[in-house]
Amino acid sequence: METSHQDKKIVYVKKIGELQNKLLQMGGLVEEAIARAIDSLKSQDLEMAEKVINNDDRIDELELEIEEGCLALIATQQPMAKDLRKVATLLKMIMDLERMGDYALDIAKTIKNIGNQPLIKPLVDIPRMARITQLMVKESLDSYIKEDVSLAVSMAQHDDEVDMLHKQIFRELLTIMMENPRTITQATHLLFISRYLERIADHATNIGENVIFLVTGERKDLN
Amino acid sequence: METSHQDKKIVYVKKIGELQNKLLQMGGLVEEAIARAIDSLKSQDLEMAEKVINNDDRIDELELEIEEGCLALIATQQPMAKDLRKVATLLKMIMDLERMGDYALDIAKTIKNIGNQPLIKPLVDIPRMARITQLMVKESLDSYIKEDVSLAVSMAQHDDEVDMLHKQIFRELLTIMMENPRTITQATHLLFISRYLERIADHATNIGENVIFLVTGERKDLN
Repeated sequence: METSHQDKKIVYVKKIGELQNKLLQMGGLVEEAIARAIDSLKSQDLEMAEKVINNDDRIDELELEIEEGCLALIATQQPMAKDLRKVATLLKMIMDLERMGDYALDIAKTIKNIGNQPLIKPLVDIPRMARITQLMVKESLDSYIKEDVSLAVSMAQHDDEVDMLHKQIFRELLTIMMENPRTITQATHLLFISRYLERIADHATNIGENVIFLVTGERKDLN
Repeated sequence: METSHQDKKIVYVKKIGELQNKLLQMGGLVEEAIARAIDSLKSQDLEMAEKVINNDDRIDELELEIEEGCLALIATQQPMAKDLRKVATLLKMIMDLERMGDYALDIAKTIKNIGNQPLIKPLVDIPRMARITQLMVKESLDSYIKEDVSLAVSMAQHDDEVDMLHKQIFRELLTIMMENPRTITQATHLLFISRYLERIADHATNIGENVIFLVTGERKDLN
């Protein structure tokens, strides 16, 4: 006997709730990875950087678990219209999150390359960028769970701040390098860290765009 | 009256074929974008770089068309098991391809930043990296269409070459910068171009991993 639409809907609601809990768990790990990576940069704590590197596997595992859950949900409950879009959006979000986790990992690896050499400048803008980016990650997930378009839009507005900070950091580091070529290697590492943070913010913006599409059915470019 | 499983299968085969044609079209555009970006770097042809920038919209449009086609296919034909995985893999691949297109766009923008200033060195390794990367993009798509695991594996082996070239370029550019601080700005741009190419190769490797999962059901780390 086939299960009724009503039954399928009940199972769908339960399953999507479980998947969303896992999504929040994955998002929490990504936020933590960013925070830890930047803390380890500021304090040049290479052990903490190592932790970020080791914890990335858990993020990747969660991605696979959620992906399998989404596919199983589509295959067994055959959600329609908006419900299907909700699962599809989740499938895309976890790819963005996984990529963010990879950037946190790249930051941690770069910190290990910097090692214990004294920092060429006190870090102010990079930690600021990291804080904004971390908030964007959190808000992008919230906007999905609550299907909150205005939160998605306001979250994405921070992307401009991040881009501006990145450009400023870029210019400043180039100047430092030109004045003192001995700073070049570390300055290049810091440039990449700034770029990785900027990318994480781009992925949060992606999520915001997908949330808007989910809720309104319209493609909107938030960049 | 409900359509039979047989009918659904026929529609599925037709639709997935159409989507795969679009995928090949999207892949062709990405390959072309990489090739053109590097040509425009070698010849410092800023108009060609501009073309790469303008053509990125078409890549993004194709991503959306394929995505919508995949979701419609899942919703209307409810493919099961392997057929569902085939559509899910396609959904993931187009995200990788779109990202590769973005990196080609980033390369083109960076070339515009370099502008008409004479190149600080004759470019050999970057074009070599670009050629390998372009081949990886092509082979990753072929491995999906043909469900060819051994092609996916051999394609991903090129990723090591790309990584090695990137490291070599990195070291060389750092040396040039240290010897002559006036080269710093351009050398930094070239560093980023090398990094973008390396990332494109990573995304091709991702596609290879997804193909292996599609065919064998096993997660294999090709990095």
